[in-house]
Amino acid sequence: MFDLPLDRLRDYRPERDEPADFDAFWAQTLAEAANHPLDPEYVRSDLPYAGVDVFDASFAGWGGDRISGWFLAPRGASGPLPCVMHYIGYGGGRGFPHNHLLWPTAGYAVLVVETRGQGGASAGSPGITGDPHGGAHAQAPGMMTRGIMDPRDYYYRRVFTDAVRAVDVAAAHPLVDPARIVVSGGSQGGAIAQAVAGLRSDVLAALVDVPFLSHISRAVEITGQDPYQEIVRFLAGVRGSAEQVFRTLAYFDGLNFAARATAPALYSVALMDEVCPPSTVFAAYNHWRGPKEITVWPWNGHEGGGGFQSEEQLRYLHKLLGD
Amino acid sequence: MFDLPLDRLRDYRPERDEPADFDAFWAQTLAEAANHPLDPEYVRSDLPYAGVDVFDASFAGWGGDRISGWFLAPRGASGPLPCVMHYIGYGGGRGFPHNHLLWPTAGYAVLVVETRGQGGASAGSPGITGDPHGGAHAQAPGMMTRGIMDPRDYYYRRVFTDAVRAVDVAAAHPLVDPARIVVSGGSQGGAIAQAVAGLRSDVLAALVDVPFLSHISRAVEITGQDPYQEIVRFLAGVRGSAEQVFRTLAYFDGLNFAARATAPALYSVALMDEVCPPSTVFAAYNHWRGPKEITVWPWNGHEGGGGFQSEEQLRYLHKLLGD
Amino acid sequence: MFDLPLDRLRDYRPERDEPADFDAFWAQTLAEAANHPLDPEYVRSDLPYAGVDVFDASFAGWGGDRISGWFLAPRGASGPLPCVMHYIGYGGGRGFPHNHLLWPTAGYAVLVVETRGQGGASAGSPGITGDPHGGAHAQAPGMMTRGIMDPRDYYYRRVFTDAVRAVDVAAAHPLVDPARIVVSGGSQGGAIAQAVAGLRSDVLAALVDVPFLSHISRAVEITGQDPYQEIVRFLAGVRGSAEQVFRTLAYFDGLNFAARATAPALYSVALMDEVCPPSTVFAAYNHWRGPKEITVWPWNGHEGGGGFQSEEQLRYLHKLLGD
Amino acid sequence: MFDLPLDRLRDYRPERDEPADFDAFWAQTLAEAANHPLDPEYVRSDLPYAGVDVFDASFAGWGGDRISGWFLAPRGASGPLPCVMHYIGYGGGRGFPHNHLLWPTAGYAVLVVETRGQGGASAGSPGITGDPHGGAHAQAPGMMTRGIMDPRDYYYRRVFTDAVRAVDVAAAHPLVDPARIVVSGGSQGGAIAQAVAGLRSDVLAALVDVPFLSHISRAVEITGQDPYQEIVRFLAGVRGSAEQVFRTLAYFDGLNFAARATAPALYSVALMDEVCPPSTVFAAYNHWRGPKEITVWPWNGHEGGGGFQSEEQLRYLHKLLGD
Amino acid sequence: MFDLPLDRLRDYRPERDEPADFDAFWAQTLAEAANHPLDPEYVRSDLPYAGVDVFDASFAGWGGDRISGWFLAPRGASGPLPCVMHYIGYGGGRGFPHNHLLWPTAGYAVLVVETRGQGGASAGSPGITGDPHGGAHAQAPGMMTRGIMDPRDYYYRRVFTDAVRAVDVAAAHPLVDPARIVVSGGSQGGAIAQAVAGLRSDVLAALVDVPFLSHISRAVEITGQDPYQEIVRFLAGVRGSAEQVFRTLAYFDGLNFAARATAPALYSVALMDEVCPPSTVFAAYNHWRGPKEITVWPWNGHEGGGGFQSEEQLRYLHKLLGD
Amino acid sequence: MFDLPLDRLRDYRPERDEPADFDAFWAQTLAEAANHPLDPEYVRSDLPYAGVDVFDASFAGWGGDRISGWFLAPRGASGPLPCVMHYIGYGGGRGFPHNHLLWPTAGYAVLVVETRGQGGASAGSPGITGDPHGGAHAQAPGMMTRGIMDPRDYYYRRVFTDAVRAVDVAAAHPLVDPARIVVSGGSQGGAIAQAVAGLRSDVLAALVDVPFLSHISRAVEITGQDPYQEIVRFLAGVRGSAEQVFRTLAYFDGLNFAARATAPALYSVALMDEVCPPSTVFAAYNHWRGPKEITVWPWNGHEGGGGFQSEEQLRYLHKLLGD
Repeated sequence: MFDLPLDRLRDYRPERDEPADFDAFWAQTLAEAANHPLDPEYVRSDLPYAGVDVFDASFAGWGGDRISGWFLAPRGASGPLPCVMHYIGYGGGRGFPHNHLLWPTAGYAVLVVETRGQGGASAGSPGITGDPHGGAHAQAPGMMTRGIMDPRDYYYRRVFTDAVRAVDVAAAHPLVDPARIVVSGGSQGGAIAQAVAGLRSDVLAALVDVPFLSHISRAVEITGQDPYQEIVRFLAGVRGSAEQVFRTLAYFDGLNFAARATAPALYSVALMDEVCPPSTVFAAYNHWRGPKEITVWPWNGHEGGGGFQSEEQLRYLHKLLGD
Repeated sequence: MFDLPLDRLRDYRPERDEPADFDAFWAQTLAEAANHPLDPEYVRSDLPYAGVDVFDASFAGWGGDRISGWFLAPRGASGPLPCVMHYIGYGGGRGFPHNHLLWPTAGYAVLVVETRGQGGASAGSPGITGDPHGGAHAQAPGMMTRGIMDPRDYYYRRVFTDAVRAVDVAAAHPLVDPARIVVSGGSQGGAIAQAVAGLRSDVLAALVDVPFLSHISRAVEITGQDPYQEIVRFLAGVRGSAEQVFRTLAYFDGLNFAARATAPALYSVALMDEVCPPSTVFAAYNHWRGPKEITVWPWNGHEGGGGFQSEEQLRYLHKLLGD
Repeated sequence: MFDLPLDRLRDYRPERDEPADFDAFWAQTLAEAANHPLDPEYVRSDLPYAGVDVFDASFAGWGGDRISGWFLAPRGASGPLPCVMHYIGYGGGRGFPHNHLLWPTAGYAVLVVETRGQGGASAGSPGITGDPHGGAHAQAPGMMTRGIMDPRDYYYRRVFTDAVRAVDVAAAHPLVDPARIVVSGGSQGGAIAQAVAGLRSDVLAALVDVPFLSHISRAVEITGQDPYQEIVRFLAGVRGSAEQVFRTLAYFDGLNFAARATAPALYSVALMDEVCPPSTVFAAYNHWRGPKEITVWPWNGHEGGGGFQSEEQLRYLHKLLGD
Repeated sequence: MFDLPLDRLRDYRPERDEPADFDAFWAQTLAEAANHPLDPEYVRSDLPYAGVDVFDASFAGWGGDRISGWFLAPRGASGPLPCVMHYIGYGGGRGFPHNHLLWPTAGYAVLVVETRGQGGASAGSPGITGDPHGGAHAQAPGMMTRGIMDPRDYYYRRVFTDAVRAVDVAAAHPLVDPARIVVSGGSQGGAIAQAVAGLRSDVLAALVDVPFLSHISRAVEITGQDPYQEIVRFLAGVRGSAEQVFRTLAYFDGLNFAARATAPALYSVALMDEVCPPSTVFAAYNHWRGPKEITVWPWNGHEGGGGFQSEEQLRYLHKLLGD
Repeated sequence: MFDLPLDRLRDYRPERDEPADFDAFWAQTLAEAANHPLDPEYVRSDLPYAGVDVFDASFAGWGGDRISGWFLAPRGASGPLPCVMHYIGYGGGRGFPHNHLLWPTAGYAVLVVETRGQGGASAGSPGITGDPHGGAHAQAPGMMTRGIMDPRDYYYRRVFTDAVRAVDVAAAHPLVDPARIVVSGGSQGGAIAQAVAGLRSDVLAALVDVPFLSHISRAVEITGQDPYQEIVRFLAGVRGSAEQVFRTLAYFDGLNFAARATAPALYSVALMDEVCPPSTVFAAYNHWRGPKEITVWPWNGHEGGGGFQSEEQLRYLHKLLGD
Repeated sequence: MFDLPLDRLRDYRPERDEPADFDAFWAQTLAEAANHPLDPEYVRSDLPYAGVDVFDASFAGWGGDRISGWFLAPRGASGPLPCVMHYIGYGGGRGFPHNHLLWPTAGYAVLVVETRGQGGASAGSPGITGDPHGGAHAQAPGMMTRGIMDPRDYYYRRVFTDAVRAVDVAAAHPLVDPARIVVSGGSQGGAIAQAVAGLRSDVLAALVDVPFLSHISRAVEITGQDPYQEIVRFLAGVRGSAEQVFRTLAYFDGLNFAARATAPALYSVALMDEVCPPSTVFAAYNHWRGPKEITVWPWNGHEGGGGFQSEEQLRYLHKLLGD
């Protein structure tokens, strides 16, 4: 128990640090991105699957950069189907189609969206999408501080924009019912799902597991684990940059997205999670504006609820969608 | 490259250490086990899957002990279906049904078989099956030395027997075509698949990834990793037991099973694997009596080919089964 | 100082969690065990010791399983002698007779009692006694969770029963004065000594060093060390089992034994002990019903007082026994 | 001694893997870069140094991107001075002017050149220069695999070009004698110095310490250390990419630059260096075309000769320059 | 944040534990040492430096033992110059002259003073000065407990005396202005600078970075890092020695020197410093009697302000000395 | 198996590096030491042992420095008894009398001899004897490089001299038969026993376990473990000192003592010992001049044969002494 006890976590709702132009920043960011057509592409996989249609999917994300993923749907479905957007944890790529069979087997389409630049060293879940942009300042190894000296240059501005646009990609797919799109992810994927739910009001639900990038100012003080420590290493190296760094991060903190999100949400948190400390998860959860539930895993670390939580999500959506 | 270079591995086929009564030992073991009826049970899962039928499966293994697993088949299939037996790596349990959707999505039934006693500390792939038996001698923590002073008391005698009987369970399932049963697994799961393929001539094919428990006498000398090190710790503690220990292990070494196996096999090996060193994998592969292929992953450790290998297997079986 | 400061430890006496049928559970357990005759055996060692008689000792423990140990007495003593029961720390076996010369050199008999199943990987203190029983559920590696889903199936039910019966074995030895039997041990050995002192009122004294298995619910929350972490790994793997697990552990928690023990006790505790945190030791000590003293080692970890404490014990018993 | 013994190292001169268009590739790269004017800027530091003039230096590197560094010269020198180019080890930035006083105190100018993108997490030697370019493919954390799937996209194409152009910057400085420019660096800095010396024939000498990026195909097989391991992690994640990756690296391997370099060189190597293994250093040294000497540090790791080697270099240049 | 938050650190001024004869102890120590003539020696280096005169310096320290260092001054300076005394961090030696060019380049002389016995395993900053004295009691490896059972036998008595006498050496140098001598150092060097400033009132200023050996009784309780842990290991081994050990350390604790120091001081502290915890640094700072400033590095560990702090010191002295 | 295979070890007998004046050096050293009277003191312990007499023993070692230990003999023995000299492993002290009961229980006297300066951080086996001498040069932490630049100044010159004189102390004890003195020890203790057996021809036998300080030039190249690594760290720090260091070590290498020893010896070696690699042990063993046996522990590390070897020794001496 390196963080607060559960009874204090239940009520933990710290002040948010929100830039005055937060909404303007994101409105302008998304508007600029919209200048690039989505240009989705789907290439059917020749893997001998009988129960699912698998497509190598890609589209134009921020700056028109090509973002890859997988699109899977139950074999021969005629739609319209509810669709789960699946965003990925730090360091991973889209992996393999068979990693994503849960939702199509349950009758959903799923659009797996890569996080640009990540997955190049993941033997278990490799990725291919590059991030063609670097940063105007020296960075710490990893993605956390790429462009961190300026919110407009920051890596996650591109990532969150990709993710918001991916919902448009899904919504435009002939098999998908645009009114039944659900965002989901764990850790970094949870941070992305939170951001998308805060930036667009048309998602039906959010499944957010042990989200990263939430209440960042506390996280960097209480955890010694990566990836939050990438930020600390940058602050240790680029002395005097803290004010500028935290100013940038305020545009990307999950608390500010959660406070705007109105969709129903199913969260999960693990009390022994030293990567995304439980107080930072509850901070986001307690700011979430929409209807919400949270599953607490008292004895787990960052793996959280694992497959149990996947089954919780399956049941949650089943009930929510009334199917 | 801590082991031999690839060109030497290709030809590496060491002498086997085989007890004179190897076949008698196993014949008697399986005959004794056969006194217990298989007594399979299938409980349908209420998880809302549309594309697959999921059953909590169990049967009576060695000594009549209850062994759990999952049985999955494409929704509404009328059979007879080919069936993949899936054995599990060291320390894991059956996990969750959605971990095993690959085969049913490809049109196969799959029977996931737990390894008794394991999975109790696996957050990612938990298990439930106990091993009600201990050992007649003090052991090292873990399963590798439980009962190791006597082949009849050794833990893997029970495990391999469970696995052989699980094929009977699958063969008896109304949806399964008993002539098209494939054994598969990685690491410990690969060792079990090798053993089953060596002990019964009726399996159609074997998918063996980075198998454990092969050429054990070499493995314990060249790797400092668990689980092989459990044996070394026992030898270090119970001084003077080496002869007896290696006598026991000879009944369980994958080389002796491979030398009896006649089914076609697809192996995989990783050249940087320090858990199951590549020379020990090639030793088994080069002794395999049946038709065989091996995929070499030169830059990977014990994760081997990961999802890439799963797709290789999908294509391999697709071609083999001519569907 | 990762635990409470010393002045708070002195008064730390938390509520106990005691099952209503605690006494019945143990009465029945011991009664069942009593159906097996003790059947002690002593084989004289041929090691050329001039000052001590050494016997390879064994007896029938729980379920009639054979438990080994050493029995040593001053050479040629005619008795009746006071006898020290020595229980062993986690992972160790009985070791060698020369590890146990302290008490016979001081004029006592000593009966060293193995902990079933342990010692198979201890180069320094090897053991031979097996635990022929496994568990009905998958477990975490190690002994801590073997059978933990049911108090009747739990590993330490067998261990504590062995230990209680070992006192009968000692008491029946012609050299031993049954009115002067002392229980002793450190860490797991301390836990066993506590349990025996709580389960039978006829021990003369208890020497309890840095005891394990005391105030378990707190221990698993504040220490990240093994063996307590074996329990946490089980809880992380077998999600949802916490209530059942802690229900089982309540029958084995040192606090409940200490609250029943009436013999004089000499405890020791180390303030930097992260394996058996000092608050969990004081919790047991402060519940001990009999006369008691505690030696505090402020700068030591789990090694506690080491040989200094052995000399404290020597003087303590010397004074207590008035010899 | 994890690598070859010294007597075999002395003669170790493996075949080089050189692309047919190696020279064309670099000629075109440098020609393209030459389209951007150098645009050097020098901002005098206000630090109260009496013996040295310190300038915050920058210029337009590859693609016109701004590259920072320090320019130091003896206070009030009127030139023309010999100038040492100093390139920096992996992960570091330019640090502070007082880290670079050795050469100006000895009568030289020094131009410290940052490695774009690096130094953002170096508390000891922070950097500021960003690399505004990412890569077309997912990468492993760090710089080693940014753009590695295509030589034209590879990170070190930009870095080596920056370094070549920095010599032009130095040569154009009014205090610097363009005929007496020396390139220097350790580890990655040594790799850069080697590359510059191979790409331009007008450097007077090279000081190359424990160079990185030399004989890369061997290095990735014999060392388990970063940064070479970044490449291995990429190969493990992006299975099947090895041919393409090594094709790219052949344009950047120090052996191919050394084989073109004609300036006199002073190398150093450390026999216990597991980061840049001695055989890979000798491989480059033994291919160096110009006059050469090497200092062998038999008992050191990657720190090599440290300050001793700096003094060796001081004396070497002093003698070479005849001052 | 493993220590107190910054607002509490600002006011953290614990009671000091000062022996009654603290001043007498040091007066006598220094008086005894004064029986040995200083006997300074300066051997000019033949390294080809144009801007600085470098001397291999040595003198007779405590007990007449020879203490080495470097003396550097701007080339051809005629004096009198202000002189910076530079004391060295734990485990290091004087290193190389080029490690110490900052002060002579800024117009100061610098006398680098080795810490006897240290630097023999420092590849980066090697030392040569031996400590010909051992201790009357067994010790823990390292220097922290050499002679710790008696203040007169304690290692730091010799070290602090050497350091005090080194000021006399500097003051006697023809180039040095004895009225403008500044003491400086980081970690152990900061402890030494603090001690010298507390023992002699004639130093002009003190530059104290992340000082070691301050508020030792707290440090050993809150940090698990070396070198403070050397003391804990001694207390764990030599049970019962704590009172004697802390009695000795009271004569060497920085708090007692700071409380006597009247010179102006520039401190630095790092809030993530687990080697010299920030509360122990503020404890010394808040007891410092003279005028004082402190630079706080919130995101750094024991590296503190690094080169930034050096530049702070440069400006601080520049301003203080009015040059 | 990080060292040679057993069949090559059996014959491994490398050339020795012996200084021409080796015998003169030691003759002079011991002669000088002999100027100090032995001055033994024995203080009877008041611990309530009935079977043994325990004395806190001390004597004047090298330079007259006080060396402590324990002297134990069977209670009330009238002598003359054979006596075992017990020398101690690196870092330990004499510990407690009950650690040394094996020999007196078997009818021998035992004289435990501390290694000066060591044991101050050993919670398990604390020591008290100081080494009042330091070294003329900076050293690496630990004892291995104290005075290593000169054989006359080297730490082990004092240690080996203490050990040789301890035999005189034992021989002079009224209970001891000077014709039946046996030297023994493990690791450093084995090195000391070897040295004593090489320096005096009157010891009856030697018990040498996994000896340290043998074939040092090979050991420092093949092991990365302490304490040999202390030497490597020194060589890495004090560059250029290797010739001088190895010149010193040649006076202390076990090979040169073994080649002079004529007493019967029982060695032990462990094939997985990375602290004292088996080739260095066999190198000494194969040079031993007297009758010899060696016990090989194939599966153990530096713990070697542990208590099994103690029992081997018990039987070996029992047979040798014909009692």
